[in-house]
Amino acid sequence: MSQQHQIPPNTPAPAAPGPDGLGAFIVFEGGDGAGKSTQAARLAEHLGRTGRSVLRTREPGGTEIGEKLRGLILDHGHGTVDARCEALMFAASRAAHVDQVIRPALASGAVVVCDRYVDSSVAYQGVGRGLGVDDVLMINRWATGSLLPDLTVLLDVDAASGRRRRTAASGAEDRLESEPDDFHASNRRAFLDLAAAEPGRYLVLDAAAGIDELAARIADRVDALLGGKARA
Amino acid sequence: MSQQHQIPPNTPAPAAPGPDGLGAFIVFEGGDGAGKSTQAARLAEHLGRTGRSVLRTREPGGTEIGEKLRGLILDHGHGTVDARCEALMFAASRAAHVDQVIRPALASGAVVVCDRYVDSSVAYQGVGRGLGVDDVLMINRWATGSLLPDLTVLLDVDAASGRRRRTAASGAEDRLESEPDDFHASNRRAFLDLAAAEPGRYLVLDAAAGIDELAARIADRVDALLGGKARA
Repeated sequence: MSQQHQIPPNTPAPAAPGPDGLGAFIVFEGGDGAGKSTQAARLAEHLGRTGRSVLRTREPGGTEIGEKLRGLILDHGHGTVDARCEALMFAASRAAHVDQVIRPALASGAVVVCDRYVDSSVAYQGVGRGLGVDDVLMINRWATGSLLPDLTVLLDVDAASGRRRRTAASGAEDRLESEPDDFHASNRRAFLDLAAAEPGRYLVLDAAAGIDELAARIADRVDALLGGKARA
Repeated sequence: MSQQHQIPPNTPAPAAPGPDGLGAFIVFEGGDGAGKSTQAARLAEHLGRTGRSVLRTREPGGTEIGEKLRGLILDHGHGTVDARCEALMFAASRAAHVDQVIRPALASGAVVVCDRYVDSSVAYQGVGRGLGVDDVLMINRWATGSLLPDLTVLLDVDAASGRRRRTAASGAEDRLESEPDDFHASNRRAFLDLAAAEPGRYLVLDAAAGIDELAARIADRVDALLGGKARA
């Protein structure tokens, strides 16, 4: 699921300091069917062309134990999964992902491009399942050692469009995708609320825009972020 | 893994109110090889003879999703499992166990006899893995909705004896059992510290005593607890 583009040997070393003085952490968030993986792939291609070391990854998953947890979380047929159990499995997968994949990549100077992160848990479990935003944030701060993205790209999609787009793409829905539209509608509001609370760390885009237009706007914003970091 | 002894029809309904006014929650804790499952079985038999409704269960596990998490936590070969990931998987399994099994049984008036609970996470992950007692307690309070045992029976065993006893019994060790003796020694101290902090909720016994002697002392203490609850 992840791919690493090495820096060509004649390219200068990465100049952009991230949250720990190295690398940068870019997250794609939004409802199912918003086009996150398409745009994450486009951004990774763009950054690769500029000579950046890029790590693309996704949640839940991204590690051996995380992919096994992903199966338990998303597949139907593992028995009843309570809301707190679900939230803690996501957090467990995330803890391994941050520790084994994301922090080492950032420390090496890479740009990490990740499909879903803490905001998805806040939206789906904190709001969608009613566990509360503060509690889900607390669990996830502990799981991640408080690692935050430098930029979160929120691809905003309404529940009905999201369902149309994802069933057209795959024909089947996983355990969370198959929740009713009002679950997805409350998640959408939760994503928008998170973005509104910290506008400097978010780029909110209408997922209904064209793929090329979205890719260009995301590339511009990330280039500005990385350029700004290089000058800092 | 769990068994339910129904109350014979001519036996009075359970009289003992527990933490929620119904049932009672008894947990066995201690190092691997301390004899917890033997003594939990003996207690369940004793309570069954007195006409109590008894549910025996264990952690990690006790539910369909929990048993699958148990496999990921305890079996070798699922890749690197970071300490936080491990602690969160235990908490996820526990959340499902409390919600689906323990609370419903307590509400029905049963005595729940459980092999391991929050103290094992505090000892193994909080102290043994160095995550900190307070943080592991916080995660587990959230996972369980702060459900505490009415009584915890701590079977105290030193690390070397525990290893001798469990390898004599099974010949193989799981991922946690196979940790070195100093891991088990620090866990032992953690269990004793938890018991010392709340002596009224603990019965601490030397696991080296005879099986029958231990069973008798545990039965006496639990009978006193249930009798006291009935009179309360």
